[in-house]
Amino acid sequence: MSRTLDAQDVDDLAVGAWVLGTGGGGSPYLNHLNMQQIASEGTQFQLVDPQELDDQARVAVVSTMGAPLVMQERLQDPRDVARAVEVMAEHIGCAFDAVMATEIGGSNAFQPLMASAHLGIPIVDADAMGRAYPEAQMTSFAIGGLQPWPLALVDPRGVEAIVTHVPTWKWMERASRALTIETGSMAATCKAPRSGTEVKRWAVANSMSFAIRIGARVRQARDDHEDPVEAVCSAANGRVIFTGKIVDVDRRTTGGFLRGVAKLSGLDEYADCEVELEFQNEWLVARLDDQVIATVPHLICLLDATSGEAIGTETARYGQRVALIGITAPPLFLSANGLNYVGPRAMGYDLDPVDPCP
Amino acid sequence: MSRTLDAQDVDDLAVGAWVLGTGGGGSPYLNHLNMQQIASEGTQFQLVDPQELDDQARVAVVSTMGAPLVMQERLQDPRDVARAVEVMAEHIGCAFDAVMATEIGGSNAFQPLMASAHLGIPIVDADAMGRAYPEAQMTSFAIGGLQPWPLALVDPRGVEAIVTHVPTWKWMERASRALTIETGSMAATCKAPRSGTEVKRWAVANSMSFAIRIGARVRQARDDHEDPVEAVCSAANGRVIFTGKIVDVDRRTTGGFLRGVAKLSGLDEYADCEVELEFQNEWLVARLDDQVIATVPHLICLLDATSGEAIGTETARYGQRVALIGITAPPLFLSANGLNYVGPRAMGYDLDPVDPCP
Repeated sequence: MSRTLDAQDVDDLAVGAWVLGTGGGGSPYLNHLNMQQIASEGTQFQLVDPQELDDQARVAVVSTMGAPLVMQERLQDPRDVARAVEVMAEHIGCAFDAVMATEIGGSNAFQPLMASAHLGIPIVDADAMGRAYPEAQMTSFAIGGLQPWPLALVDPRGVEAIVTHVPTWKWMERASRALTIETGSMAATCKAPRSGTEVKRWAVANSMSFAIRIGARVRQARDDHEDPVEAVCSAANGRVIFTGKIVDVDRRTTGGFLRGVAKLSGLDEYADCEVELEFQNEWLVARLDDQVIATVPHLICLLDATSGEAIGTETARYGQRVALIGITAPPLFLSANGLNYVGPRAMGYDLDPVDPCP
Repeated sequence: MSRTLDAQDVDDLAVGAWVLGTGGGGSPYLNHLNMQQIASEGTQFQLVDPQELDDQARVAVVSTMGAPLVMQERLQDPRDVARAVEVMAEHIGCAFDAVMATEIGGSNAFQPLMASAHLGIPIVDADAMGRAYPEAQMTSFAIGGLQPWPLALVDPRGVEAIVTHVPTWKWMERASRALTIETGSMAATCKAPRSGTEVKRWAVANSMSFAIRIGARVRQARDDHEDPVEAVCSAANGRVIFTGKIVDVDRRTTGGFLRGVAKLSGLDEYADCEVELEFQNEWLVARLDDQVIATVPHLICLLDATSGEAIGTETARYGQRVALIGITAPPLFLSANGLNYVGPRAMGYDLDPVDPCP
């Protein structure tokens, strides 16, 4: 169902998208404030159900590529992602009918709102990951075998480029990542344009609404003095797999990504246990006392134990009391071809996927 | 004067362009063989004097970017540079009337021949450096303040990209270098298109003929059992500044460039002296017993003492008997703005330029 997002939806989106970010996608905090401001000035965000798109509709697919820690330091101007859409429109020679997120996770859930605010086109209630993944080829569109090119990239200093052809999806990641690193490990991008037909067939439908629903449940739980972590589990069909506190974070920005390991020391029923979380922008593998308890493509979400607020790989810090929750990935990402793009081996781990909610 | 290049011209170009490469631009050996073959199969290369270009003529400016050592290992397909011109033509929406070299030095002198062979357009007798320089912004067009974008880049695996806007010439170098490094420190490029007016005003005119003339003089000297090194000096208005043998080469491919230092031990009148040559693709600074005797933008050319054949930063090796010659740079590159782009400080040396032929 298509509708207009209100200020409450925008707030709820920030909470829900940050949960679905699985540690990555960038903290939505700054872009959320920006969109609150824009909404308060009268900008309306139209959310369109993908099933209502014309087959021939032209959909711009946007995200900010880079390392989450950089996005904390370099504030984004919403016009950058709007400009990326314009560069793409100039390249293909026609305008877009709507805009959608590449990834619903974290700050990237706000990119279509930012583009919409400046371009006046509606937002498709969908994304291509159903969460956040670190690399550009890790999308439902890649799994569907759709064309990876062209990609437009914009840096606010005025560097603009288009990758016009690549032999594989991985080469699109490589070429665009090289440019992203050169501009400071952060760049606004407009990915390969999609038709309405392609979005309806391959996008993760209604993920924007899903994120808003998670945020709304957390808000309700807080208002009702209920457990926000349980609210996330209930809204997202997840399960608490560990509770404890963060005792160490080893983090570095390298090769355009934020990589490292966070260590959690158990509390309550997990006392005397330890969890290690390895990450590349997102939490990828969770080990409980050396036993793998969760891997990509399943969602590993680290939440503040009290507020239910998600904790990102760039915001995790010593001493935080946390709940680790797991959510089973959608079937598309668990197919053989899905795992080729987003399974543990695609991320460099010689592991079979482990579902935290068996 | 416009004319058709014959097989002899192509051979002479290889020798002369390698001298003007000042160590860089890549050894012309492999591309020379390729163009010999293509010429023997009947392809004709039309050389057009820049003064004969229409003001509105559209000129493609081509080069292969990268580290010379890689170019020795990865053979070039002439279709790659032709493809870069095609990608640019598609981007700007119109065909080119002629093609010219970005740099006359080394293998890059052959890029317009390679493009011409596959596209059937004439070659402008000019380039934008009058030698070889390591970076993309080090051109007469940059010194002239012309627009640096767009740039098309092609890797034979099918990676194609266009840098559509940059805030400065240096950013064009940075963006295109990042892509070049990602594709293996070698990529075919078509730089910003130039009008006939721009070429006539800012290109280094008749540098292709100049390179051919140097090569012809060396060939004549060899045939006449005269000194080929003296032939280079006479043809190029250069001066021998050192003779000796190579006793050490410290060389690494890093950041998309070939960097290092070559050490020469003196012979004859230079016995007991030592020269150090620092390089970034090209020979940049020559020190004789710690005294700077030559710097960019002046041309520092290392020649085989017997054959007069140039020696590149990637082909220099222990034991070679060499003559080091210096050639004064053209006035444009010695202007204040010229030195901003190609002076020693632009290459990272806190030195004033030193002319080896005072």
